Amino acid sequence: MKKRIKSALGKGKECKVVTIGGGTGTFVVLSGLKNYPVKISAIVSMADDGGSTGILREEFGMLPPGDIRRALVALSQQTPLLAKLFSYRFFRGSFKGHSFGNLLLTVLTKLKGGFEKAVEEAGKILHIKGEVIPVTLDNAKLYAQLEDGEIIKGETNIDIPKHNGKLRIEKVWLKPLCRANPKAISAIKTADLIILGPGDLYTSTIPNLLVKGMPEAIRKSRAKRIFVCNLMTKFGETTGFMAEDFVSALESYLGKNVLNYVLLNNRKPSSLRLKKYAKEKAELVRYKKEDFQGKNYKVIEGDFLREKGFIRHSSQKLAKILTKLCKK
Amino acid sequence: MKKRIKSALGKGKECKVVTIGGGTGTFVVLSGLKNYPVKISAIVSMADDGGSTGILREEFGMLPPGDIRRALVALSQQTPLLAKLFSYRFFRGSFKGHSFGNLLLTVLTKLKGGFEKAVEEAGKILHIKGEVIPVTLDNAKLYAQLEDGEIIKGETNIDIPKHNGKLRIEKVWLKPLCRANPKAISAIKTADLIILGPGDLYTSTIPNLLVKGMPEAIRKSRAKRIFVCNLMTKFGETTGFMAEDFVSALESYLGKNVLNYVLLNNRKPSSLRLKKYAKEKAELVRYKKEDFQGKNYKVIEGDFLREKGFIRHSSQKLAKILTKLCKK
Repeated sequence: MKKRIKSALGKGKECKVVTIGGGTGTFVVLSGLKNYPVKISAIVSMADDGGSTGILREEFGMLPPGDIRRALVALSQQTPLLAKLFSYRFFRGSFKGHSFGNLLLTVLTKLKGGFEKAVEEAGKILHIKGEVIPVTLDNAKLYAQLEDGEIIKGETNIDIPKHNGKLRIEKVWLKPLCRANPKAISAIKTADLIILGPGDLYTSTIPNLLVKGMPEAIRKSRAKRIFVCNLMTKFGETTGFMAEDFVSALESYLGKNVLNYVLLNNRKPSSLRLKKYAKEKAELVRYKKEDFQGKNYKVIEGDFLREKGFIRHSSQKLAKILTKLCKK
Repeated sequence: MKKRIKSALGKGKECKVVTIGGGTGTFVVLSGLKNYPVKISAIVSMADDGGSTGILREEFGMLPPGDIRRALVALSQQTPLLAKLFSYRFFRGSFKGHSFGNLLLTVLTKLKGGFEKAVEEAGKILHIKGEVIPVTLDNAKLYAQLEDGEIIKGETNIDIPKHNGKLRIEKVWLKPLCRANPKAISAIKTADLIILGPGDLYTSTIPNLLVKGMPEAIRKSRAKRIFVCNLMTKFGETTGFMAEDFVSALESYLGKNVLNYVLLNNRKPSSLRLKKYAKEKAELVRYKKEDFQGKNYKVIEGDFLREKGFIRHSSQKLAKILTKLCKK
C-alpha cells in the first residue's frame, strides 16, 4: 500500500494530509490514517470548555486540552498502555472526571512555558505519527445565536442545550477574535488533501473556521478538500439536518465552491443500534441524491460505517477511501 | 572507572548494590550511583502517609507512592523533562499539593492491576537504571511509642511531631504486620553491597527493617553492609543524637555485628548553612572517635558534604566511596 500511494504522487513524495476538526470524529479519521504512509497534520479546534477541560481552563488559565489529547492518542504509535494512560479518567477522589492526559498537558504547559510546546512534547512522549496543531493559541469562548435571537455563551452550553433544541443555530463566533496558529496555515498551504469533519458541526468542525485566516488559507490551498459528513444529527445543534444542510452550513463559513468532495455513508445501521440514540434525540443523517445535483463538488457515497457499537465511521474504511484521493 | 570496578570483581561481573531507605537520602545515594557501572536495586520503605501520598492512600486505597516516585526519578536516564514532570507538584486547583508522579503511579496501578506492576511500568517510562522495589506490598501504618509510653499513629505524626519533641522514641512498628516483598529478599540475597540510609531514622530507614524477613535477609547476606549516617538530627525523632546513637538505634532492629562499615562525614558546613536549620531545631550530627572503639564495624570518615545549599550528602562523593567498597 505504501508503494502504491507513493508512486502515484511521484517518487519519494509523501501525500500531505491535513485534518480539521476535533472530538471523536477526528479521532476516528486519524486512527485510520496513521496506518498509511502519509504525512498527517491534525488541526484541532480550541473551543471546548466542558468537564475536565473546562475546569483546567478556569483553574490554570489553560488552553483547552481535551480535543488535543484525543488527537494525540489517535496518532500515538507507542504501546497501548501509554495511550490508555493518557485517556484515563479519574472516577473518584479529588480528581473525579479529570483525564490524566489533560493533567499531563497542563503540567507540560507549566514546565515548557507554553501550550504549543507542551503539545509537541506530549507528541514525543506518545511517539505520534505526524503532528497535532491547535488551530489557535489565543484563548476565546464560543458563542451561538439561535434563530429567535437568543445568544448562548460557551461550547458546553451549545453542546448540551439548555435552550430549546428545536431552534436552529443562526450563527456562531469566537470572542475575542482569534488568529490562526501559523503552523496550521503553513500545513494547509502545503497540503495535498484537506479533510474537514466529521464532528459536531457547530462545536467541533466550524469553530476551526471561525479563527482568522483559516477559511482563506483553505480556499487558497491547492489541496483537494473533502468534507466527511456526519452520520447522526445532534439535538440542539443539527436537529432535522439532512446531509445537504450540513454542507450548506459549513459552506457559509468556508465559502462556496471550496469543497471538491463530500463523503456520504449509504449504509443504514440496524434499528437496534439506532434505538440507543433515541434518548439523545439524535437521528441518522439522510440525503436525497437530487439535493446534490448541479453542485460544484463530487459526492462520494459508500459504506463507511463501523460494523458494531456506537454509530461511527469505520477508521479503516475512511482511511482507505481518503488516501485514494491522494492519488487522483 | 567502569573498567576498574569490573576488573576488581572479576571479568564481566557487575557489582550488585542494594540501597535500603526512602525519601531524600535515598534519592541522593541513587542519583550518584546511577552513573557507575553497578547493578542497582533500590528497596524503598512503604510507611509514608503524609501529603499527596496520604490522600491517595485514603481515596484510592493505594500503597504509598511518594518514596517510590523519588527513587524512580533518581534512577531515571530519560530526558530531564520527564523527571521534572514526574516530580511536578500542583500548586493550585483541585490537585493542589499532589505530585504528578504520584498520580501517574495511581493510574498505572489501576491500569496494570497492581502497585508492583505500576512501579515496573513507571520504571520503563522513565527508563531507569536498575530497579525500584517496594519493601512490602502489604498496606500498613507506622506506629511509635515514646519513652513516656505515649503511642503515636502514622508516619506523618511521628515525622512532624505534635508530641513533645524532646522525648525519645522507644520503639516503632508496623500494623498490621507486613511480609517482605520477595523481590527485596532476592535482591539482598545476591547483593555485593548493601547501603542503609541516610534518611529519617525512624520514619524512612528503620521502617524497612520492621517488615518481616528483612533483618534476617540482611544478616544472612554475604554482602558488605554499610550505614551512611545522617548529617543532621531531626526534631522529635533524633533530637540530640550523636552518630553512635544512630548506629545503636539501627542495630536494635537490624542486629549487632551486622554492619561492616559506618560512613561519617567530618566536614562542618558553614554556620550560615547551619543557621537555616535552627528553625526546625535540627542540628549537625556529631561524633567522638572513642565512641567507635572496639566496634565490629569499620568507620569511614571523610568529606561527603555537598558544596552548598541544603546540608545533604554529595551524590558524587558518596557514589565514589561506596562503589570503592565493591572492590574490597
